[in-house]
Amino acid sequence: MIRVGFEEMLELLNNLFRKYDFPASRARLCAERITENSFDGIISHGVFMVPWLIERVGRGSIDTSVDPRPVGSLGVIEQWDGRGGLGIYNAVRATERALEIAGEFGIGCLALKNTNHWFRAGSYGWQAVRSGAGLIAWTNTKSNMPVWGAVEKSVGNNPLVVAVPHPSTPIVLDISMSQFALGKLRLHARSNSELPVPGGYNDKQELISDPGEILESGRLLPIGFWKGSGLAIVLDALAAVLSGGLSTAVLDGQEEERNVSQVFIAFNLAGFDPPSVHGQVERILGHLHSARPVNPSQGIRHPGQRVLELRERNRRDGLSLDDEIWEAVLRLYRGA
Amino acid sequence: MIRVGFEEMLELLNNLFRKYDFPASRARLCAERITENSFDGIISHGVFMVPWLIERVGRGSIDTSVDPRPVGSLGVIEQWDGRGGLGIYNAVRATERALEIAGEFGIGCLALKNTNHWFRAGSYGWQAVRSGAGLIAWTNTKSNMPVWGAVEKSVGNNPLVVAVPHPSTPIVLDISMSQFALGKLRLHARSNSELPVPGGYNDKQELISDPGEILESGRLLPIGFWKGSGLAIVLDALAAVLSGGLSTAVLDGQEEERNVSQVFIAFNLAGFDPPSVHGQVERILGHLHSARPVNPSQGIRHPGQRVLELRERNRRDGLSLDDEIWEAVLRLYRGA
Repeated sequence: MIRVGFEEMLELLNNLFRKYDFPASRARLCAERITENSFDGIISHGVFMVPWLIERVGRGSIDTSVDPRPVGSLGVIEQWDGRGGLGIYNAVRATERALEIAGEFGIGCLALKNTNHWFRAGSYGWQAVRSGAGLIAWTNTKSNMPVWGAVEKSVGNNPLVVAVPHPSTPIVLDISMSQFALGKLRLHARSNSELPVPGGYNDKQELISDPGEILESGRLLPIGFWKGSGLAIVLDALAAVLSGGLSTAVLDGQEEERNVSQVFIAFNLAGFDPPSVHGQVERILGHLHSARPVNPSQGIRHPGQRVLELRERNRRDGLSLDDEIWEAVLRLYRGA
Repeated sequence: MIRVGFEEMLELLNNLFRKYDFPASRARLCAERITENSFDGIISHGVFMVPWLIERVGRGSIDTSVDPRPVGSLGVIEQWDGRGGLGIYNAVRATERALEIAGEFGIGCLALKNTNHWFRAGSYGWQAVRSGAGLIAWTNTKSNMPVWGAVEKSVGNNPLVVAVPHPSTPIVLDISMSQFALGKLRLHARSNSELPVPGGYNDKQELISDPGEILESGRLLPIGFWKGSGLAIVLDALAAVLSGGLSTAVLDGQEEERNVSQVFIAFNLAGFDPPSVHGQVERILGHLHSARPVNPSQGIRHPGQRVLELRERNRRDGLSLDDEIWEAVLRLYRGA
């Protein structure tokens, strides 16, 4: 393990992206979000994905030069075309625009088609709560789970973020519809560690906890069995019909995942009485934390709490990182 | 088991509610929804709950005479006060109004406070798809699950419906955030049948599949462990802050569950190109059903499919019902 500072990672990624000809403002934005994701403790959806991004950009599968553009609207719903551009950039812009519409009409919905991997769902929830707004946003993906009752995968795990604002303790839930995200499985597989609960099936239809075997079968377990399978289906369907973009059914016909569909629904909670909104959040968190913990040394955590703890610690002490992950980024930088 | 016809149940419930002094239009509406829920195969959230409803109404804990009323608005978000009235009536009116706002502005959001149990989440999703709209709606509840990492229950299972319209095969997902709904556990307990997967904890912190033991401990398992726990928390928080109503933290201070908070978000999908929306849904369902089933005799089902099958069969053949459930309703009718 090595230790990397926040500014150090930010600058290196920014320079790396500039070397790969990202326009300056996009290089900076991507470097910021990827560094933030990593320092928030979500390395799997941060610096760990940089080689994947560079590989895609390098062979032109992601176009760093394009801007997403509006292609339709219906009241507070705007449809945008991401034009195969940078997933992080498109999603940041979409969140901004959803917040802007919500500022005017209470709710703003941005439905984005033809975009690419947004890295970390939570990133856009934190963006919303920073401006005092709530957010529900999700993306579809290529299939990585069998729909309930099926042997083969035919539904994505469609990561979802739901965020409720508060000045110091926002609630930000970032989950995919599989018991474990793909990135999490890859990190577990790297460290040869068993999953804490079953995370997928092997070829004999058995529930298993070995991350490597699950990555091989590609058959992730939906959260709550039939329930997460159903949630994944409706998220994909809503994303496709609201954006007019590709559903998983079509994504599965592509060799690689691109041109995914995403939805961003912002709620202007700052338009309601903010002290009362904050009081509600405090009361809810107070109630949750008043329950007796199973493990007194761990306590009880609400969605987003761990992120804030890790953010503070990692920005203060530097991020402890697997050498290989950092080396891979340095190699790219030197080789560019 | 006995067999009851659709009109027979509808008329009996209508007359029963009239005997208990429900205003005529509300008696009819409640009788319709409860009969529909039952004939859709969701007896646990249909006729099975009638004695509970009558008991509440009988002692004035639910007021059948009041109308919900608007108390605030922010653009496409309207806040209503349910005034402790009939949960079904309030939720039907809220869905209607959300659809109306969506018809004008693309999205309509109705946030309802001080309402009562709406019986079945799916009911409002089917209402939306009948008019070609999409819907995301949920309710909070008193605690019935330990939040992840806690011994005692401090979060509700907050039933959620997500509906995507199609003229013949809408996708309607109706799930609570617990692996099993309370009503489902009660029905399993009545028939002494083990749950197909673990559904809660006993007092020794062990995951168990005995419905009776789970009802006793009151500690339902969230779908996907920490993930469903997190989803339940954000649904409660959004319901409370959007409606300005009670969160689970406050509901837990009441002796019984009343004055819950609900959110109805309607999407005017009929405002987009309907053939393209329907084509998207068909393509998604075609893809799901093309996967190889684990059990060829059962096939693969999408959310809402089973409901349509049961609806057709039960309306044609009559609903097969546990004698005791029907007897309980008849006793109420005779005794009123």
